[in-house]
Amino acid sequence: MTAQRDYAALVQQGLSLDLTRGKPSPRQLDLSNVMLKLPTSYRAADGSDGRNYGNLQGLRELRELFAPLVQVPAEQLVVGGNSSLTLMHDTIVHALLAPLPGAARRWVEEPEITFLCPVPGYDRHFTICERFGIKMVPVPMTATGPDMDVVEGLVATDPSVKGIWCVPKYSNPTGVVYSDETVRRLAAMPTAAPDFRIFWDNAYAVHHLTDTPAELADLLAISAGQGHPDRVFVYASTSKVTLAGAGVSFFGSSPANVEWFLHQTSKQSIGPDKLNQLRHVEFLGDAAGVAAHMRRHAELVGPKFELVDKVLTDRLGGLAEWTSPKGGYFVSLEVPHAAEVVARAKAAGIALTPAGATHPYGTDPADRTIRIAPTYPELDELERAITGLAVCVRLVAEERA
Amino acid sequence: MTAQRDYAALVQQGLSLDLTRGKPSPRQLDLSNVMLKLPTSYRAADGSDGRNYGNLQGLRELRELFAPLVQVPAEQLVVGGNSSLTLMHDTIVHALLAPLPGAARRWVEEPEITFLCPVPGYDRHFTICERFGIKMVPVPMTATGPDMDVVEGLVATDPSVKGIWCVPKYSNPTGVVYSDETVRRLAAMPTAAPDFRIFWDNAYAVHHLTDTPAELADLLAISAGQGHPDRVFVYASTSKVTLAGAGVSFFGSSPANVEWFLHQTSKQSIGPDKLNQLRHVEFLGDAAGVAAHMRRHAELVGPKFELVDKVLTDRLGGLAEWTSPKGGYFVSLEVPHAAEVVARAKAAGIALTPAGATHPYGTDPADRTIRIAPTYPELDELERAITGLAVCVRLVAEERA
Repeated sequence: MTAQRDYAALVQQGLSLDLTRGKPSPRQLDLSNVMLKLPTSYRAADGSDGRNYGNLQGLRELRELFAPLVQVPAEQLVVGGNSSLTLMHDTIVHALLAPLPGAARRWVEEPEITFLCPVPGYDRHFTICERFGIKMVPVPMTATGPDMDVVEGLVATDPSVKGIWCVPKYSNPTGVVYSDETVRRLAAMPTAAPDFRIFWDNAYAVHHLTDTPAELADLLAISAGQGHPDRVFVYASTSKVTLAGAGVSFFGSSPANVEWFLHQTSKQSIGPDKLNQLRHVEFLGDAAGVAAHMRRHAELVGPKFELVDKVLTDRLGGLAEWTSPKGGYFVSLEVPHAAEVVARAKAAGIALTPAGATHPYGTDPADRTIRIAPTYPELDELERAITGLAVCVRLVAEERA
Repeated sequence: MTAQRDYAALVQQGLSLDLTRGKPSPRQLDLSNVMLKLPTSYRAADGSDGRNYGNLQGLRELRELFAPLVQVPAEQLVVGGNSSLTLMHDTIVHALLAPLPGAARRWVEEPEITFLCPVPGYDRHFTICERFGIKMVPVPMTATGPDMDVVEGLVATDPSVKGIWCVPKYSNPTGVVYSDETVRRLAAMPTAAPDFRIFWDNAYAVHHLTDTPAELADLLAISAGQGHPDRVFVYASTSKVTLAGAGVSFFGSSPANVEWFLHQTSKQSIGPDKLNQLRHVEFLGDAAGVAAHMRRHAELVGPKFELVDKVLTDRLGGLAEWTSPKGGYFVSLEVPHAAEVVARAKAAGIALTPAGATHPYGTDPADRTIRIAPTYPELDELERAITGLAVCVRLVAEERA
């Protein structure tokens, strides 16, 4: 009955801790505080006035800065507002209401649209699909990315499969990096739908926690080489590079897709906030500047991931499984009766992402996955939270034994 | 043949002048340059960290600042990104893909959607409708707003009429301010569609050019008083208050509509750029600060409108008609054979908004309206451009006589 005693003591502490969302901590945001006084000039590299309307695609100097980091040629990159989620949402809206290159019709006219959802995955991807009545089919994640045998089988035979969500580097929430073989198969696979698209949410492209950054194969280029130039939509943002609410976002794709995207966007906007783009160029400078800045993030975030791993090892060795990502923002914990564990943690003042959130429709059939977001709390709070979470896992295991 | 000689001389000058878009001039943008060094603090009034994610509705202090200016209670106001056009576009997208309060179904499921378009009007409104296959029916503008007999007749009998575009103050391009009677009738009129909406694009709410600002009746409140609380969508922005590409936008409506809008937006965004919101609060201060700032704009813009009026009077008295707005960004010039005049001006190096752009589908059946945007060029350039335009009007009149 140790676990019950520990849990009673935990509740007694009256904690109020939050491990729900992947938010940068205040100390991480402090790294970019100088941006509040930028840009020093409103003049873009081409001499244009960054204060006025215009330039739907975004400043060339910012596109050139991020092109190598997100693996998209600068001329095929579009700079958006403060949220890549908006770009993903709006791409699907555009595809629903205007035919994609290669599409027979608008998606809204299709009898059914299906997206493949590697699980565990990112709840906000799933929410977009659910909103638009897009059917979601889960695909198991492996240590090298989604199970490609399953993916290839589904896309080859079902013409309603129009998309797949991928967070290819330091995946949310497992931390998995897609292998070269996975990327090659995604690029090469035949698809029944001529307008099939890979939503390549490279949210953690530069968010390394070690000195040996993961390498990701260049899906856009490899797909083009395989005769599928229009297959890939690349997304990225600086939300977790500079300031979470005041970053810039990127959309990248083939020339035909970019033309299609900008055509839709031209009805929606007279141009992005170019002062924020100049702010980013001036602050980050170049690719080396981004790398140096991300190392400072890693100095703050890395110890938190190490702490999670240590506490889980000490407290749950043998009772549960979890990932040890080399980058990104999340740890995925696999335990029996995950929903009950989350409920017990909540009752003890530890807020976790709802169990099931990592799966389509909020339903984790195995009831096993808990997403841990360790970045926001400071180390002492994080230690209390993960220690408390471990108490809850042990309690549920003991009660269900 | 004076006109032909004048035109030959005009072409000889080799001008390159642009009267196409309603852009603030660099000197207007200079008025807000201090914003490039703001905000001095990232802390919002409620203590929250403006740098991080969250706060979908926008900072309360900014909503309170603009509430009286756009005639929407602060709790019913939403702050968007840098473009109210995006808010309008996205509202229509949301209504197409998710049922509005009071709607029987999503607009995309309707056999036909019709919007009333007071003409002359704003081309970007029409472009949104055209993009989504929304049928546009022109309604003549009068000196007090759209012809309300026509509007009332159409909305009462045709359930496909779901919307009307209105720029109620210093209308684009006529400068007309809707009368109290027009507003009252818009608020009170019975509509066949239960989900009819007025798209109230109050783009020039505070953009006065005289010391006697136009008063606009409060459509949102009056509609609620008439039993139509959900009828009105209010839009506004600071694009022509602070910085054209880096302003903030506003959406305001009834509590039910705002809840609906935020529900849709919650799938699209994790929150707006609150640093830009803080930048605006700190720079503008309060309603008096906005008024003082807008007087500085008027000092720059007012002489341009006076110049346009003077040149047109001197050169075209009796040959044409034009408006003399007391605010806003445009002058509407009515001449015979407008398309030919625009073509002749273009050949002489004077770029004008395409003839017809002020009408749905780019077609002005009377071929009469030319929109003049006098804000961007400085006075000497503007004088050359309007003088040249007058030469073109005279030339076409002479040739067609």
